[in-house]
Amino acid sequence: MCHVPGGRRLCRVKVVALAGGVGAGKFLRGLVRVVPPGDVTVIVNTADDIRLHGLHVSPDVDSVTYWLAGEADRERGWGRAGETWRTIEELRRLDAEGAWFSLGDVDLAVHLYRTGLLDKKATLTEATARIAAGYGVAARILPMTDDPVATRLEVVRLGRSFDLHFQEYWVQGEGRDEVKAIRYEGAESARPAPGVLEALEAADAVVLPPSNPIASIGPILAVPGIRERVAARRDRVVGVSGIVGGAPLAGMADRLLPVAGVEVSAAGVAGHYRDILGGWVIDRADEELRSRIEEMGIRVAVTDTIMSDDAKATALAHTVLSLL
Amino acid sequence: MCHVPGGRRLCRVKVVALAGGVGAGKFLRGLVRVVPPGDVTVIVNTADDIRLHGLHVSPDVDSVTYWLAGEADRERGWGRAGETWRTIEELRRLDAEGAWFSLGDVDLAVHLYRTGLLDKKATLTEATARIAAGYGVAARILPMTDDPVATRLEVVRLGRSFDLHFQEYWVQGEGRDEVKAIRYEGAESARPAPGVLEALEAADAVVLPPSNPIASIGPILAVPGIRERVAARRDRVVGVSGIVGGAPLAGMADRLLPVAGVEVSAAGVAGHYRDILGGWVIDRADEELRSRIEEMGIRVAVTDTIMSDDAKATALAHTVLSLL
Repeated sequence: MCHVPGGRRLCRVKVVALAGGVGAGKFLRGLVRVVPPGDVTVIVNTADDIRLHGLHVSPDVDSVTYWLAGEADRERGWGRAGETWRTIEELRRLDAEGAWFSLGDVDLAVHLYRTGLLDKKATLTEATARIAAGYGVAARILPMTDDPVATRLEVVRLGRSFDLHFQEYWVQGEGRDEVKAIRYEGAESARPAPGVLEALEAADAVVLPPSNPIASIGPILAVPGIRERVAARRDRVVGVSGIVGGAPLAGMADRLLPVAGVEVSAAGVAGHYRDILGGWVIDRADEELRSRIEEMGIRVAVTDTIMSDDAKATALAHTVLSLL
Repeated sequence: MCHVPGGRRLCRVKVVALAGGVGAGKFLRGLVRVVPPGDVTVIVNTADDIRLHGLHVSPDVDSVTYWLAGEADRERGWGRAGETWRTIEELRRLDAEGAWFSLGDVDLAVHLYRTGLLDKKATLTEATARIAAGYGVAARILPMTDDPVATRLEVVRLGRSFDLHFQEYWVQGEGRDEVKAIRYEGAESARPAPGVLEALEAADAVVLPPSNPIASIGPILAVPGIRERVAARRDRVVGVSGIVGGAPLAGMADRLLPVAGVEVSAAGVAGHYRDILGGWVIDRADEELRSRIEEMGIRVAVTDTIMSDDAKATALAHTVLSLL
């Protein structure tokens, strides 16, 4: 499956990755160094998408695009490297309350381009492909669906219940509210985007990068047809735990997993995925969980999962493929 | 009507101005130095409005707002002082063809704010008031209508006919196409925005700043009810010629006036307005036209009409009001 041309290990496998934002982005930079980018399809969560200031904001799709394009800001994790903030600062002058989502000046161009294309009746799939092509991304980036799906959270704030969009909870509310319930609004009637099911059926490997199981991977699997296709390939499905030492590397999975009845640990998430997961890569910090996970019929690899640079991500991608 | 408190001449008249972009903006800066800004209502052309990149672009409304707010770029004439162009430059990288309308980073904030408000079902009138308030503009800025109206031009390019939006002709096509016909699409079924007819009825003076008679003032007068209200106040209507020495001070009026059968001169435009015009301010360069205009039953004042600074605009506003 993998050979070493001119000293560079290259694996000829068709890989499909299910992706959220930062964790997926970092991992994918490694994956496309192990597998030719043209053999990689990324199916991206769109349940974080939101319409703000008239623009279609698609945070995970943009994150994946920017990371693969080498345009992401590694320190901040989200958005563009070398970003400036003139528009949002002026918008806050006009609308301090309403401008809670930080859109950088360069990032905004992508939002204008996408929204303009959608305005002219392009699908999100088509707009995403145009943007990826514009940044020279060779991997195929597919939104999970072209239909509207929204992760919505029932939260309690000062004793009162609110129904919030994921971004209102996480970005506007800074994740401070107590979460009571989570649902993927619109998922049941959403259709997988063109190419999604075909890519899963043709895949030699299905990869779950260390993305949030509830906020990122959950919505993708909730689109009718996707979970079944992934489950049907269970022995070709390998994931990387984003929970290390009982806490998420980033984000708010520790607050959302318990709401879904999932233990906040590499083993807990493996159990959550057990019907679809053939292999699970965990961090050295979690080596003690190996046998618990293997008892679920899941192969385990233990390695360094912290992707502080592309070399680490590349090594992690090798480990993932080695579990196939 | 006017008194001089502490040496500053102040006229207590309720003034309504019909406005296009730059010429109106410059003039209004003078007007609000002669009349208390709270006594000024500006009815602004919206037939140049266009939806671009998902955003509602309203060039004349923004020009008037920026000029009155002291936020306009005097050298460039349009847009914001101290502007930067990061978003549009990035958008041109993605979409060289599509990004022909220059939106600055700071200007974009206003577009995001407006489009977000419209998305939440605010009217253009409401959005315009919120933006003006955000910039501390005390004059009342009213779009001519909340309904869609578009100036469209039939042009000939390389021997073929095209039907273009005004912005496609003027900004995208740089005004190079030969214009065959002009129409105000949607005008016949548009309703004047709330407050427009009431302001005209209550006005002590109706002012036509030196805006383009065809592209700016024409669409306003084409909204049913407005022309009649202005004509009914004919003796209280005073305009400033934007044609000086047989050529427009700015813009493309010299190319559009002939299409409408109007001579490109201060007298030609006075004739075009004769049913609504009581007084007409012309430049010293056109003094020879005075008797021709007076023969139409229009009072004439001759002065320096070039508004190179606010002092000149203030003097011009005085001259306009002196014709009442």
